[in-house]
Formats: sequence, structure tokens, C-alpha cells
Amino acid sequence: MAQVAVMSPNGEVNKIDKDSAESAAALRQMAALMLKAVLADKYDGIRLGDAVAEDDQFWVDSDKDDQQVSADELEGLEADIKKLAKNDAKVEFVERDVNDALADVKNDKFSTELINDHAKNGKVAMYNLGNAYAVAEAPILVYGDVVKNFKLLSVAGAYWKGMSSNPMLQRIYGTAFYKKDDLAEDLKKRQEAKERDHRVIGNQLDLFFVDPKVGAGLPYWLPKGAAIRRTIERYIIDREVADGYEHVYTPVLMNLDAYKTSGHWEHYRDDMFPPMDMGDGEMLELRPMNCPSHIQVYKHHLRSYRDLPLRIAELGMMHRYEKSGALSGLQRVREMTLNDGHTFVALDQIRSEFAKILKLIMSVYKDFDITDYSFRLSLRDPKNVKKYYANDEMWEKSQSMLKQAMDDLSLDYYEAEGEAAFYGPKLDIQTKTALGNDETMSTIQLDFMLPERFGLTYVGKDGQEHMPVMIHRGVVGTMERFVAYLTEIYKGAFPTWLAPEQVHIIPVSDDKHGDYADQLGAELRAAKIRVNVDHRNEKMGYKIREAQTQKVPYTLVVGDDEMANGSVSVRKYGEKEQNSMSKQDFMDELLADIASYSRAK
Amino acid sequence: MAQVAVMSPNGEVNKIDKDSAESAAALRQMAALMLKAVLADKYDGIRLGDAVAEDDQFWVDSDKDDQQVSADELEGLEADIKKLAKNDAKVEFVERDVNDALADVKNDKFSTELINDHAKNGKVAMYNLGNAYAVAEAPILVYGDVVKNFKLLSVAGAYWKGMSSNPMLQRIYGTAFYKKDDLAEDLKKRQEAKERDHRVIGNQLDLFFVDPKVGAGLPYWLPKGAAIRRTIERYIIDREVADGYEHVYTPVLMNLDAYKTSGHWEHYRDDMFPPMDMGDGEMLELRPMNCPSHIQVYKHHLRSYRDLPLRIAELGMMHRYEKSGALSGLQRVREMTLNDGHTFVALDQIRSEFAKILKLIMSVYKDFDITDYSFRLSLRDPKNVKKYYANDEMWEKSQSMLKQAMDDLSLDYYEAEGEAAFYGPKLDIQTKTALGNDETMSTIQLDFMLPERFGLTYVGKDGQEHMPVMIHRGVVGTMERFVAYLTEIYKGAFPTWLAPEQVHIIPVSDDKHGDYADQLGAELRAAKIRVNVDHRNEKMGYKIREAQTQKVPYTLVVGDDEMANGSVSVRKYGEKEQNSMSKQDFMDELLADIASYSRAK
Repeated sequence: MAQVAVMSPNGEVNKIDKDSAESAAALRQMAALMLKAVLADKYDGIRLGDAVAEDDQFWVDSDKDDQQVSADELEGLEADIKKLAKNDAKVEFVERDVNDALADVKNDKFSTELINDHAKNGKVAMYNLGNAYAVAEAPILVYGDVVKNFKLLSVAGAYWKGMSSNPMLQRIYGTAFYKKDDLAEDLKKRQEAKERDHRVIGNQLDLFFVDPKVGAGLPYWLPKGAAIRRTIERYIIDREVADGYEHVYTPVLMNLDAYKTSGHWEHYRDDMFPPMDMGDGEMLELRPMNCPSHIQVYKHHLRSYRDLPLRIAELGMMHRYEKSGALSGLQRVREMTLNDGHTFVALDQIRSEFAKILKLIMSVYKDFDITDYSFRLSLRDPKNVKKYYANDEMWEKSQSMLKQAMDDLSLDYYEAEGEAAFYGPKLDIQTKTALGNDETMSTIQLDFMLPERFGLTYVGKDGQEHMPVMIHRGVVGTMERFVAYLTEIYKGAFPTWLAPEQVHIIPVSDDKHGDYADQLGAELRAAKIRVNVDHRNEKMGYKIREAQTQKVPYTLVVGDDEMANGSVSVRKYGEKEQNSMSKQDFMDELLADIASYSRAK
Repeated sequence: MAQVAVMSPNGEVNKIDKDSAESAAALRQMAALMLKAVLADKYDGIRLGDAVAEDDQFWVDSDKDDQQVSADELEGLEADIKKLAKNDAKVEFVERDVNDALADVKNDKFSTELINDHAKNGKVAMYNLGNAYAVAEAPILVYGDVVKNFKLLSVAGAYWKGMSSNPMLQRIYGTAFYKKDDLAEDLKKRQEAKERDHRVIGNQLDLFFVDPKVGAGLPYWLPKGAAIRRTIERYIIDREVADGYEHVYTPVLMNLDAYKTSGHWEHYRDDMFPPMDMGDGEMLELRPMNCPSHIQVYKHHLRSYRDLPLRIAELGMMHRYEKSGALSGLQRVREMTLNDGHTFVALDQIRSEFAKILKLIMSVYKDFDITDYSFRLSLRDPKNVKKYYANDEMWEKSQSMLKQAMDDLSLDYYEAEGEAAFYGPKLDIQTKTALGNDETMSTIQLDFMLPERFGLTYVGKDGQEHMPVMIHRGVVGTMERFVAYLTEIYKGAFPTWLAPEQVHIIPVSDDKHGDYADQLGAELRAAKIRVNVDHRNEKMGYKIREAQTQKVPYTLVVGDDEMANGSVSVRKYGEKEQNSMSKQDFMDELLADIASYSRAK
């Protein structure tokens, strides 16, 4: 097997397999150092931050007094790196005197800080390539001649050391492979991902934005994204209310004591926001989960067996602390609204309630045309029952009821022994994202522990107090992640019922047909259709193309003929031809389309 | 004029007018001390907190090892006070040695703390009545014989010194007057207020609750309250979208810097929640207002004159710090969701936009049957223009446009010169609450300042940058306050479109008619009616009475006749007779009722 020479940050050189992940990382680290070298050469006075290989890419941070490095300059930088690679590029390890190293970078506060951070006993370990020096942090290839199949991908702002109070540098991203085909395949995958990326589509269609300057991981839903979200919210609430859920609104803040009782403060604190001291003895906490809130609703009344199953649901806003580096569009956020529900049942109701929830989930999936999913049932490890909440009868009964319910519905599932939560077994429903990744969309989790911790009871038929079992369940997850997911599977072409703009009306001549277009618009709006009339002073072809770019399901063109016949000329999204039809026929088709949700026809 | 002898906390006695507010307060202080005295006499080992006269009532806090004093015991306590009053009750002023005073209360930590708090140089000033001593804090009547026309009103929990981290004491409320008629009138007013009090009705109808132990001023909307709120939310969003507003969702958290830019941090800090340090240089703040959030939406794109007026709206959740003593049900809360909107206009669009907003507000009022309202236009003080944002042209033009718009619509208004905000003139729409108090329901405020502070611009027809004017407007205010208001004006009898339960179906015999009732329920539910079928094993009369207590608009009784004819027997809320009609006729009437909103017929 082919091998390559790799240098460690302590200067040691070893041969390792070329095919290994370590070797790929060393290649990308070398490409990053070469990028740093050409940046230093090319731009006088540039300040340089980290050069890092991470996952399947690498990046280098830089800062300039004038304009930052732009995407236009990437091609030139690639050429420079190629030249350097051909020129016997070789990394040398040097232990420099810190003062010498600092003298070289005296106008570069970032390099200065990096050197100081890595200094030991007056020395700093560095890699040297041509005129460039960089602190030795990660393994790197010794010879740069293999840096041929690489690509500088993009530029984006990044805070120095990831702290939003620090200056923002310009980050250049790239990737590198040993083989040409691997690079080509990777770039193709990236292109595909980009075309489906909800952040890219969200920007094209003006659905949402996130601005770290006003709040990292805190999305703003623009009018069109908000229309999609609102439609989903109303849909899911109506479905749940029809299915016997009691929808509530509960506060996003709660006394910290409740999270001490629930155990969240002990086990989940790293994911929680800092508590707020209200100055009168009260410590308030932004909730990371809605369960304790719904428990308050349960506890507000004395409950009897006649009240069970009691189904409490909410579009519950929650806050979770995620590291800023992990945040991404609507996919990973710090403020989210969960389609949450908690059902309180007697032990012998688990089977039927579980089946009821499953049926709701599958019916909702159908409406959104989510077809690629599988079931994963997580059970207690039978060889190590001490790891779990101690109540054998509950575990035995409930696990067998879950399996029975799956069998009753003839559903295949993967049994994951030993993967139950401490507090009970669960079923996860896994979907595939547009890029083929697994994602847990829905979940049904039994919980024996919280009812005990909060002292929940109901009066049974026997007149005695019993403890209910709590079922946590989510159907479509958070609004944020669900809309991100839908954007990617629909590639932004939202089905009519969800489309923020359902109908776009273009008068052939605004002077002659503008009024007719407005009248048509008003008729559609009265039927609760989201419609715009395009009065702009632009060419018709341009307007039609733009409606296609915005993925509007129906574009209507109205001119003399349509006005004379009271008809419309309809172009559906993605179709080339235009069909003339009566207003009534169009309306019938449109309403039938909306009523069919996203279901595959 | 009659006079009474009043003792000050320093022991001085003066005669003051009996008719004065001071004299009424001294009477109530005396009643409070007498209550304290009889409590100490009656319950061995009782611990006693504050005795306070406040507004039109007085209260005394106490604590016992066994059951707290209950409402059942109030009558007995009243008799004891009356006995004491007849018995030449007279207050003496004493300066006691602190050690003596403490020795008397050695098992009472609250009295101990009160004495220590008021001790000075080893002495403590006290009022003495019979065997009872209390620290002298407020003026008090010297002679208790006039304490005849009083009433102990209620008991409720209250934290020691108002701190939720302290123990909860039992607070007994009472009131007292010199004249019998005054007491009778006050009690009548209290009874009326209680019958309309949204907290009382909210409890009877199970609409919401607030539990200071999990969060002061943070309401939980129970399923029935949530149904009302959801109906209002959907209604107002649909109205606004139809009126050209772009509804968005924006985060409840924002970087504190934005509130420094807006000026809220400087001028409004006392009403804001404590900021959260996210540990990476970011300080996040729960927003007290939505304006800076909507400004971010405005700034997200370059704006041109063609985009104006740009109307951004949201049901925006906000958090405001209110002292815990000021919190009350849904009326005064710390977490609230505002029907908020911000319109960005060019200066010359103010008149038409203002009129458009006014028309929307009045149309919405009509739908809720809000008829008792008046307009208050707050303008700049012409004699002191330096107090205001400095731009004479803007003030002159906009004030005259507001007046013109009011005149165009032939609306009467009160001109409040000098009551404009610093940043612009405003119109408040004042409604009357059920108890006759004035309340600002809607507001339209011009703002010249925030657009400048945040550097907002649009490109005009002339190709130059201009600054827009911002209009803050609220139609129905916060969901919390609006539902509190509606609960009081409707006395809990919500009109059909808002009623949480619209139809209650009672089978005469559940065995024989239960299925028909369910089938009827399903038909109504399919038409999106909120309906319950009452299968309980209770007498029919009881079920009908309960549906009336719960103020359900339509109660249907179905028995043999109805099943045979496919008809229903309908009883409307508040009516005595029952009408038999066909299902179709009932459905037509019901849907017409819902479609008419709350409008007076």
C-alpha cells in the first residue's frame, strides 16, 4: 500500500498509509499551509489567523486593511498554490526563538497571538514553507508536490477564535484529494448539496435569515417563510385537536427549581441558557423542554381515571444552548418551536395510545409526502437492567405493549436493545434527508420517571391514587428543522398548499389588463388563496421567468382573449406549456390541489 | 366638620377631618390592629406578620403550625372585632425596651423580625391595644369604637415581605368605613367586580392559571383559554394579511447592543429582564418590544420607494419586568404576546396610511362588538418644541396629516397638546373596561427617531437615499390583556365564534341515544365546530345546568324524537325555552352566528 511522509507537531516524521483518514487530513493541512504561504506572498500587510483541516475540507482566516479577499480572487490563489506545489514545496520543522518569530509578524496581531499561545520556554514549534512560518498544531504532509487535486470553495466571515466580541476575519474554504476522481465526486456532491441546501434556497426564495450580529442561531422568518410556517402550524394544531389533543400555551420561562426537580439542571445544564436572577428570590430559566410545563397543566386539577388518556399539546418555544460553531440556518438553532405533546395514560392504556400516536404520525407523513422512513424501537438492555429506572413490571409490560402495537399495525422495525433512555423505552421514526443522511423526525418516548419526580397521580376506579405514565411525542419536530427538511426534499418547490405565493398573475399590458388581473386577484384572495398581481413595468418574459425562479405553483397570464372570455391562461411550475381554461375550472383545480396537501398523486 | 383623633407612629395625637382620605386610612389601620389583636387572642401560637391599610382595604398576615385561618372563620373574627370595638378599645403608644418586646414574641419569627427592623437605640415604638402590641408604622385611630361598618373580605396566600423565596403566610383582607351606606356600596361594587373579574371567570371556566411558585406573572393558558386565544390570533393575522401586512416570526432574544442603539437600555432598563451572558462575548436580552426586531427585517433588503408603505406585523412575544405586587391574572403579566405591527412610510404617505390603520382598527372593533371608545390625539407642545425630536417640518406635516385623516373620517377626537412622545405624535384609542376604567386598547404612534438611530433608508424616485417614518401600531394589544378585557365585557359568555365549547350535546339516555349524539358531534366537528358530547352518568337536568354555568352557546338535547326525525332540540345560552329544529336549520343558524363574529345583531 502506498505511503506518505507526515510530520507531527513535534517535528517527528513518519510514513503512513495514503488511504487513511489521517493522510487525507495531513494533505488538507498541507494545502492550508500552502494557501497561507501564497496569501502572505501576494498581499502585503495581510494578517493571518488559523489554518485548519477539518472534516472533508480546510480553511484559512485572514484580515486586510482594505477589501477582504473575495471569491473572485480564489482562482488566482489556486494557480499560485499549483506553482508552489510544482516547485519542490517541502515543510521544515523549526523551533524558533519566540522573539524572532514575533519580530517577523509585528504588524499582525492574530499571528502574534497564535505564537504567544504556543510559546514554551522562549521557543515556539513552527512549520516553515518557503518564506512562510506557521505554528505547528496538527500533522502535515512533508512534501507538497501531491497538492494537485484541490479546490478553493468559498469565502465567508468568521469571528477570531469564534467569539462574537472579536473582530470578524475572512475565511477561505477549500478541499483537497489525492485522486482527481475523488475531487470531482466531492465537488459534484457539494454542488448537489448546495442546490438543495435550505440556507441557499432560503436566501433565493427570501424565506428567512440569521444574523449573528443580532443573535447567533436566532432565525428571522421573513414573510414568505412565515407563510409556510403558519400553514404548517395551523395544519398540525387542527390535526391534533381533531385527534383529541388539548392545545395549550405555556410560558417559555419557569422557575429554575422545576428543572432541578425534573433533573434537567443536573444532567442537561450545558445545553441550557444562563438563569436570570429576578432580584426577589426568583431564578427564572428559559425552558429547554416543554415537559415540566405540561406537567404543571396536569397538576392544575385533581385527575381521575376518567380523564385519561389526557393529551396536552403545544407549539412550544424552547431555548437550547448550542456552540456557535454548530449553528446552521434553520437546521441547528438556539431558539426553536417544537410540535410537542405529552399524553398521560394508565399503564394498561399504553398499547392503544401508542398505536393512536403512530397512526397520526403516518397520516401526517402522507400529507407531506414523506415516504422514506423506518422505525427504531429502543429497549432496555436485558443483561443490564440496573442501568434503568427500577420497575421491572413497567418495563416488561410497556415493552411488550409497544411491540404488540407495532405488530398490530404490521410495521417492520429495528429492535435496538440497550438503547432505551434511563426513564423508559422509545420509538424513533427515522427519515432520510435529501442528501441521504438519517434524521429522527418523530419520536414516541415512554417516561416512568418524571411522573414520580413531580408526584403525579390520578384516582383510579378503585378510589386509590395511582401514578400515570407519561408519553413524550413529537410529530413533525421543531418548525425550524421541519421547514429546513421540507425545503431540501422539495428543492424549494413547495406544494401548492404550502407555497408562500400560490398564484402569480401577470397582465399582458398593465394599462389594458391590469384591472382584470386585480379583479381576478381579489376573487382568489377571497377564497383564501395567496396571490400577487405583477404590475411592474417589466417584460412579460422576464416576469414569467421570475415566477419560475420563485417556484410559484401557478402563473396566470391575462390578456385580451382572457378578458373577453373571462378565462385564464395557466402555466404550472416546471411545465413549459400554457393552458387556457375557464376561471371556474382553474379555481376547481387549484382548490383540489390545495386540498390534496403534498400527497403524491 | 366632624373630626377624629389620629395617632402618628411617633406617638403624637392630632385631630383630623373625618371625611379625609387620611382618616379613612387610619380607620382601616385601626381595624387591622384589632384583627391582629383578636387573632392573637383566639389562636394560641399564631405568628403574625404585617398589618397594613392600603387603598380601599386593609390586610393582616398570619401563620400557624396547623391549618391556616380559613374563609369559614372570618365571620367569627368579625364578631370578635365587634366585641372589642364595644369594649372601649383604645390605642396606647409605648416605647418598649427591645428585649422586653422580643421576649413577648419569642416563638414568632415574623413579629421578631418586625421588631428588630424597627428597633432604635434599644427601644421600639409600638401601638398597644389590650394584650396586643404592634410596631408603630402608620397613622392609626386612637379610639376603636367607630370600627362598626367593616367586613373581612377574603383570605389568600402572600409571601413574607413579598419575596417568593420566603415562606407563604395567610393574608386576611378586609375593608372598613365610617358610614354603613358607604360599606354597602363598596361591597356591592366589589361583588360586581368579582362577577366580571377575568381571574374569577377564568377560574370558573378553566381558561388559565398563574402559579407564582413556577413563575410570577407567567400565565398558563388551559385548553379552553387557548382555544379563545387561537381563534383571536388566526382572526387578526388573517385580517392583517388581507390588509397588506407581511406577517413574520422574529426571535424573542436579541443582542443587547440593539437595545443600546434603540435607547431602550438607557431609558427603559427598569422594565427589562436581566441580560444573559452567553460566554462567547454575546449578551442576549429578552425583548421588551418588537420594534428593533422589525427594523432588522426592514434592513435585510435594500428598500426603494416602490416598497413603501412596508407593513411588517407579528404576534410578537415580549417580556417586561413588573414588580410582583403589580401582577394580576392576564391583565398585568411578565410574558405577553403583542398584536404588533410597524409600517414604514415616506413622509407624504402618513395621512393615507394612518387612515388605513384607523379603518382596520374600527372594523376589528365592530367584529368584537367594542362600541364604547374615544380618540385621543397627542401632539407636540407648541410652546416647548425643544422637548421633542428636532425636525420642525416632520412635526408640522405629520400632525396636520393626522388631523386631516381624522377629519376625513369625520371622527371626533380629544387634542392633547404636549402629550406626544419625544419621538413623534400619536393617537390612542381609549376603551372603557366593564368596570368603567379607561384603557388604551389600540395605538398608532409615529416615530421619527428609531429610523435615524438604526440608519434606515430607502431609495426615492430621485435616486437619492431618504429616511422613512416608522409607524408603531397595535390593534387589539396583547393577547393576555385583550382576553382579560373580553372576558370582563362578555362576563365569560363568549360569543359563538370565540366560545371554547360552541355546542354541548346531551343524549337523553346514553344507552339509547349516545351513538346518535356521537354521530351528530362528528358532523359538527367536520364543519370545524368545537363540540363535546356529554356521555357522563349524570342526570340530564344537572348536565343542562352545567352547560349553562360553563356558558356554552348551544346545548343540544337528543332523545327518541330527535333520533326518529333527524332533528335536534336546541337551547341557547341564557334562554329558558328549548326549540326543536332540523339538523340543517340548526347548522345554518350556527354557521351564520359564527360568521357574524360578536357583532351586535
